[in-house]
Amino acid sequence: MLPERKFIESVRKLGVAREGRELVRGIGDDCAVLQVPAGQQILITTDLCIEGVHFRREWHPPDSVGHRCLARGLSDIAAMGGEPVACFLSLGVPKRLSQQWVNGFLRGFLQLARQFKVPLAGGDTSSSQEITADIVVVGKVPSGTALMRSGARPGDQIYVTGELGYSAAVLKRLYAREKASKRTFSRYFYPVPCIEVGRVLRQKKWPTAMIDLSDGLSVDLAHICDESDASATVEAKMIPIAKEANLDLALHGGEDYELLFTVRPGIKLPEKIAGVRVTMIGRIEKKSSRGSPVKIRDRRGNRKTLKPKGWQHFSKN
Amino acid sequence: MLPERKFIESVRKLGVAREGRELVRGIGDDCAVLQVPAGQQILITTDLCIEGVHFRREWHPPDSVGHRCLARGLSDIAAMGGEPVACFLSLGVPKRLSQQWVNGFLRGFLQLARQFKVPLAGGDTSSSQEITADIVVVGKVPSGTALMRSGARPGDQIYVTGELGYSAAVLKRLYAREKASKRTFSRYFYPVPCIEVGRVLRQKKWPTAMIDLSDGLSVDLAHICDESDASATVEAKMIPIAKEANLDLALHGGEDYELLFTVRPGIKLPEKIAGVRVTMIGRIEKKSSRGSPVKIRDRRGNRKTLKPKGWQHFSKN
Repeated sequence: MLPERKFIESVRKLGVAREGRELVRGIGDDCAVLQVPAGQQILITTDLCIEGVHFRREWHPPDSVGHRCLARGLSDIAAMGGEPVACFLSLGVPKRLSQQWVNGFLRGFLQLARQFKVPLAGGDTSSSQEITADIVVVGKVPSGTALMRSGARPGDQIYVTGELGYSAAVLKRLYAREKASKRTFSRYFYPVPCIEVGRVLRQKKWPTAMIDLSDGLSVDLAHICDESDASATVEAKMIPIAKEANLDLALHGGEDYELLFTVRPGIKLPEKIAGVRVTMIGRIEKKSSRGSPVKIRDRRGNRKTLKPKGWQHFSKN
Repeated sequence: MLPERKFIESVRKLGVAREGRELVRGIGDDCAVLQVPAGQQILITTDLCIEGVHFRREWHPPDSVGHRCLARGLSDIAAMGGEPVACFLSLGVPKRLSQQWVNGFLRGFLQLARQFKVPLAGGDTSSSQEITADIVVVGKVPSGTALMRSGARPGDQIYVTGELGYSAAVLKRLYAREKASKRTFSRYFYPVPCIEVGRVLRQKKWPTAMIDLSDGLSVDLAHICDESDASATVEAKMIPIAKEANLDLALHGGEDYELLFTVRPGIKLPEKIAGVRVTMIGRIEKKSSRGSPVKIRDRRGNRKTLKPKGWQHFSKN
């Protein structure tokens, strides 16, 4: 294992622990110290990434693992309409893991951190049996403007950004042992969180509720329905399916990190927001008394329940 | 593994995710939302606890593991003179782990959280090969008053709270397969972080630098010296050694979670602060050009280098 001091020194030297702006004190004390401007609320999200559950060493290059870990956290900040302020990394590594792997992981992690100007402000290290990374991202949002999951009301239009099913389609290739290079499928190996779209949506005050698509449409829309005490119907023919995918992958595949949000009826959104296509895919309805809250109308007009199939990760066990 | 929804529901029902005060939104959205009062800075610490490294299932009852994980984070907040605001738990559990163990862990964790009025505001869960808990504690402190490691100056007196070596003495018993019940050695199995002492010290503006004793006096004092660009000499005869321990355990044993701090020369502290004994054990000196920054004067008056032996945890590997 990396001795903790040495690890801390190497991260410090990479220069992303720079203090200034909101970060008063980064790595090197008992706690990081942050100063968030008056009138802002603080957002905090944690995401646990474990080898064999969230990634596989034989499929994912180390820099992709580092990138994807941080992208999950940044996507949660985007889903609230927030801006990232600092990130933290708790890393458990097996004693026999190569220094090269750890360096690759950090390179991928820190490259994405730099892209979004998020300093690595602290964390912890330990030896472990399997590679374990817990990511914390701290963000900010003007007080009272965070976009919750709980604000959707009957009649609201349901929108998504981008296209769905892409990550699941790549994952299917990996399972089938088909070639899936990080260059050809870079959007899977290096997903870009929708920070900018989230910020614009929050500033425009369009969404009544928002969530990021990490677990898949069927699951994440059910979360909005549960928290908003409502139901929803999506239209199969309106769902923007990635060209590599199909309807099933678009409905149930996870890790697309697009945004799913609801907008009051009557408001017509532009085709693109911050350069990203947005598509209306259905409506929020009054809570139905029985069964799953999400329904789908197929291309023939038949409405049926869309069970939240969930994103069960790709466990070996 | 616990299905995440079920896990979240069970935590929510335990009632510690209550919103109000600083916590605007807890468990159930993409991020937690916190509102820290104007004029306060935010403290954040993360601590990774892994089975076989930080605890052993055959030695530590589950509620002790949960308690100790959170205590580590609270102790970091105490070391800055801060007050805890919210905590987060990322928990990886093996699929075959009993529900009883998880319940015990949560009971210990949440009991300590309640004691310090810290709501559990979020986290993540996953399956894993070994039990893995990453704890985040968020705290607050009036802007500019956080007690750093870097403020010690030559001539400053070095103080510790409580007694040292106790946890290492209990750990030695556990290694030797001697009996060490959680009732007899409750200060080891359920350590109480020094939040109150830390707060009073910060309010009185006595410390120039502070750290918590998690890794052991020889290591943690070296951290203060490194960050303050100074050296230090401690007096063997002045160190408050726990009656179960000896000098070696008091110098190098970790996990006592007492506070180590420095005070300008000439200031005489009371014998007790917030009911806890404080003891002067040495002096900060100008940085010496060579070797380890920490020296010890033994009972015969001979001064020698005190190598930071560190707290290498008790790994099986």
